[in-house]
Amino acid sequence: MASVQVSGCPTWPEVARVLACLFEKDVEFQLIRPCNYKGLKRMPSIQGKGLRFSYQDGDGTRHDSREICKHIAETYAHQGNKDLLAKTGTVERDSIDQWLKTEVEIFDRPSTELVLNLGFKLPMEADREVIEKDKQRLNEVLDEYEKRLQETKFLAGDKFTLADLFHLPNTQFLVSNDECCSLIRSRKRVIRWWDKISLRPSWQRVVEMQQEISLLSEDTRRHRWLDIELRGYLRT
Amino acid sequence: MASVQVSGCPTWPEVARVLACLFEKDVEFQLIRPCNYKGLKRMPSIQGKGLRFSYQDGDGTRHDSREICKHIAETYAHQGNKDLLAKTGTVERDSIDQWLKTEVEIFDRPSTELVLNLGFKLPMEADREVIEKDKQRLNEVLDEYEKRLQETKFLAGDKFTLADLFHLPNTQFLVSNDECCSLIRSRKRVIRWWDKISLRPSWQRVVEMQQEISLLSEDTRRHRWLDIELRGYLRT
Repeated sequence: MASVQVSGCPTWPEVARVLACLFEKDVEFQLIRPCNYKGLKRMPSIQGKGLRFSYQDGDGTRHDSREICKHIAETYAHQGNKDLLAKTGTVERDSIDQWLKTEVEIFDRPSTELVLNLGFKLPMEADREVIEKDKQRLNEVLDEYEKRLQETKFLAGDKFTLADLFHLPNTQFLVSNDECCSLIRSRKRVIRWWDKISLRPSWQRVVEMQQEISLLSEDTRRHRWLDIELRGYLRT
Repeated sequence: MASVQVSGCPTWPEVARVLACLFEKDVEFQLIRPCNYKGLKRMPSIQGKGLRFSYQDGDGTRHDSREICKHIAETYAHQGNKDLLAKTGTVERDSIDQWLKTEVEIFDRPSTELVLNLGFKLPMEADREVIEKDKQRLNEVLDEYEKRLQETKFLAGDKFTLADLFHLPNTQFLVSNDECCSLIRSRKRVIRWWDKISLRPSWQRVVEMQQEISLLSEDTRRHRWLDIELRGYLRT
């Protein structure tokens, strides 16, 4: 039995973040996927409806994807991608920590709200005022990113680290959404960065796992996004 | 949360049998699928490697697929297909019980051994003597079925019941296997019966769920069959 177990759907951003990290660190694991059926139909798997996202290993059970990724990077320090999290006390680590903080403090909230309003809700339910405000906020955030990426290849320096990895789930949505893609694509260095981080085999594998669901005949694109857990998605 | 939870892969025959029954009875449920990953590769999910087939509801946890199907038919007596299991004490029930016994006593063992030898093993590992013996035994069994199906549309009478449903997983393999398909196809009434029971929306849905795995690029047909749990598959 793989000693690491992840419970949840790859389409849930928290799960996607942890899967990308496990693949980067070359960790053997078991994914436990919940699928709800009513009649012959597969229903969206929303967290709280029978299963909550969790990560379990010999050290216990965790639920915060960012904390879990740090824990994985530390536990498996000597295998897979060793650059994800530099040693504490180094300049590299300070830079990574600063960008991990930036992601949580200024990138996560507006990008998550855009996912919810544009990915989950029907057009008439979406709050246009909130959407425009979030796009404006992200515009400002991404201007800062564009400046940073003039100096370095990746956010925390010249290596791909957890700071970049944490951005993958929400940026994947922004790039795939007609209304948001220009936020990323209009910025020369941001799009170059996105191409580099999203084409990594680890993330490509996660995207492939997310698409397994959309291959099913009855699942529409809307269903797929419904699959993202609502409550856990917003950082409360 | 759906109160019924099934843990396992739809490719495991025990799971497939229970899923078909849940779909027939129109029961809402949650399927918990285990998937093992090593590097970027999805590995076969063998029972015992982290998860065992189980069925859980308000009445506790069960592991025998035939016992579970009877339990489902009794618990949800008034919904979905009401003919799966007739009332105790009726002529219909006696006939169903007799054919449930026939499946376990004379059909299951040779068909399961054929699945293991032809579905799991490499040609050089398969025991040709055992294969020929099992084909001979099944030939005799199916002669009996052919006779029975001259008299009635389904095994226990003129309605589709658990007696037919229990045959679905192994017969699906026999029909799909080049070496075994003639066992079924050469018998006029057996093939007519198979066409009727296998084209039911419940079983079609199970087959669709089994094929989800084979849609993944790295999964070969062999992997898919490896997915069937080895130890639990043989009735020990």
